[in-house]
Amino acid sequence: MRTPIDLTHASIPSTIEITATNERGETVPVQISGEHPLTLYFDKKELLTLMTLGAQPEALVLGWLRNQRLVQSPDEIAAIHVDWETESVAVTSKQLKETGVSIWEKSDLSSKLDKKTTTSGCGQGTVFGDLMADLDKVQLSDAYGISQEVLYSVMDQVRKHESIYKQAGAVHGCALCSNSGLQRGEILLFVEDVGRHNAVDAIAGLMWLHDMPGEDKIFYTTGRLTSEMVIKCAQMGIPVLVSRSGLTQMGYEIAKQLNITMLGRCQGKHYLLYTGTHRFSQLPQTDFA
Amino acid sequence: MRTPIDLTHASIPSTIEITATNERGETVPVQISGEHPLTLYFDKKELLTLMTLGAQPEALVLGWLRNQRLVQSPDEIAAIHVDWETESVAVTSKQLKETGVSIWEKSDLSSKLDKKTTTSGCGQGTVFGDLMADLDKVQLSDAYGISQEVLYSVMDQVRKHESIYKQAGAVHGCALCSNSGLQRGEILLFVEDVGRHNAVDAIAGLMWLHDMPGEDKIFYTTGRLTSEMVIKCAQMGIPVLVSRSGLTQMGYEIAKQLNITMLGRCQGKHYLLYTGTHRFSQLPQTDFA
Repeated sequence: MRTPIDLTHASIPSTIEITATNERGETVPVQISGEHPLTLYFDKKELLTLMTLGAQPEALVLGWLRNQRLVQSPDEIAAIHVDWETESVAVTSKQLKETGVSIWEKSDLSSKLDKKTTTSGCGQGTVFGDLMADLDKVQLSDAYGISQEVLYSVMDQVRKHESIYKQAGAVHGCALCSNSGLQRGEILLFVEDVGRHNAVDAIAGLMWLHDMPGEDKIFYTTGRLTSEMVIKCAQMGIPVLVSRSGLTQMGYEIAKQLNITMLGRCQGKHYLLYTGTHRFSQLPQTDFA
Repeated sequence: MRTPIDLTHASIPSTIEITATNERGETVPVQISGEHPLTLYFDKKELLTLMTLGAQPEALVLGWLRNQRLVQSPDEIAAIHVDWETESVAVTSKQLKETGVSIWEKSDLSSKLDKKTTTSGCGQGTVFGDLMADLDKVQLSDAYGISQEVLYSVMDQVRKHESIYKQAGAVHGCALCSNSGLQRGEILLFVEDVGRHNAVDAIAGLMWLHDMPGEDKIFYTTGRLTSEMVIKCAQMGIPVLVSRSGLTQMGYEIAKQLNITMLGRCQGKHYLLYTGTHRFSQLPQTDFA
């Protein structure tokens, strides 16, 4: 059993109320989603400022470090302290805590910060390091197939679940759903944020905090299936990716290469299965592996 | 009259066709939007890789440099050459061309590259330099008001205009509309891209290429009104910002501070006027300033 990470729980309210004027000239109250800067310091080095709704700041930061591959395991992290007063989050490595030696003295980490790619995804467009380079090492599990029935269950649950979006709009939601056992087709984690890459990063952080593997999960996003979304999903080891939106060419090509089961345009009873068809079945689920 | 920028015209097809399987198990053709990496070199220095649809690559790059405030005027640029073979674009400054001295020898420019903010907007989340710092210098014109009639004209035209979105989805569109003279309420420029910040940057680039001022324009975006979208609009000197989507808290606060006339949730005959109400009138347009 590893030592738990020392975490703040600095979630802040997700919506604020403003007034606006509608087409009839009436003043109406409007709920809008929060958007807060959060500057990330890792072993005292300033890395970047994330703009976030602020619902899951600790998980967001942990998942960001994971998805940027600056950290290989949650065991490397001793503490994540969010302070909204200073709009900052301090992440401390176990190495620094235990030996006094900062993680930046590892030579390979600093070099990862040099290569920037601005991606077309929503939210955090900066990808540090060369994510694409290691993609051919990714092996996604074929142990858990998905049936049409389970897909419809996921779509249905997400529709009922979305909260801030319904209230205030202008956010993206991501859900991690079970694809095994009695909870199959149910939502395990649900995160909304102003950028959908924040939402996926927060899911990645929560998966680490709760020791959840990816192979028996389904990842749902309200956003588009761009390259970065597909890559992050693969990095989390999740073989099934579902969206109500469409996909881009590079998202498609990477999903094909990685053999991810990717479904888009999921609305009502409609969907399109793009890639990884071997995991999908139109027949009712018979196995409960 | 300034020397025109030496430009390639390297627009590439915006959609490709793939096949997918629908909910009835039928194989159907699907149009998806292109997404291509384009690595930007400015006076031979590699700055970043943009992911783009590729419809307006030269304008995108020029507008990106403008919106990141790495360039103060189009007069500083001698050439923009896009080469899809190498997935790169070479931007050459007039200074380098005429004197042989690279723009990076100006000391202030390199320091702007140091400060990164990852924003919540779609697309290019990286903002170099400290955009926010100079916001209080922005003065937006009050010379051109907007009537409900003109707003409806803009909404109607954009609805008819969107092409790639209708075909393939997964793109954001931005339109620059006239707010003066006989073309009032009409679309002057329309750009779609995989990230909405690419689309707004391409508009910024086209405005420079065609010497178009911002004060008598309306900016329309299909995307959400986040901080970065509002800031970029203000930087282009456009006082009216319209979206079919909602807004975030920071987008709202910056719009209020800058006195931008910002309208969201524009769908059908509905809209919400959030800020800058002094420019808006529900009465028919009487002036044609």
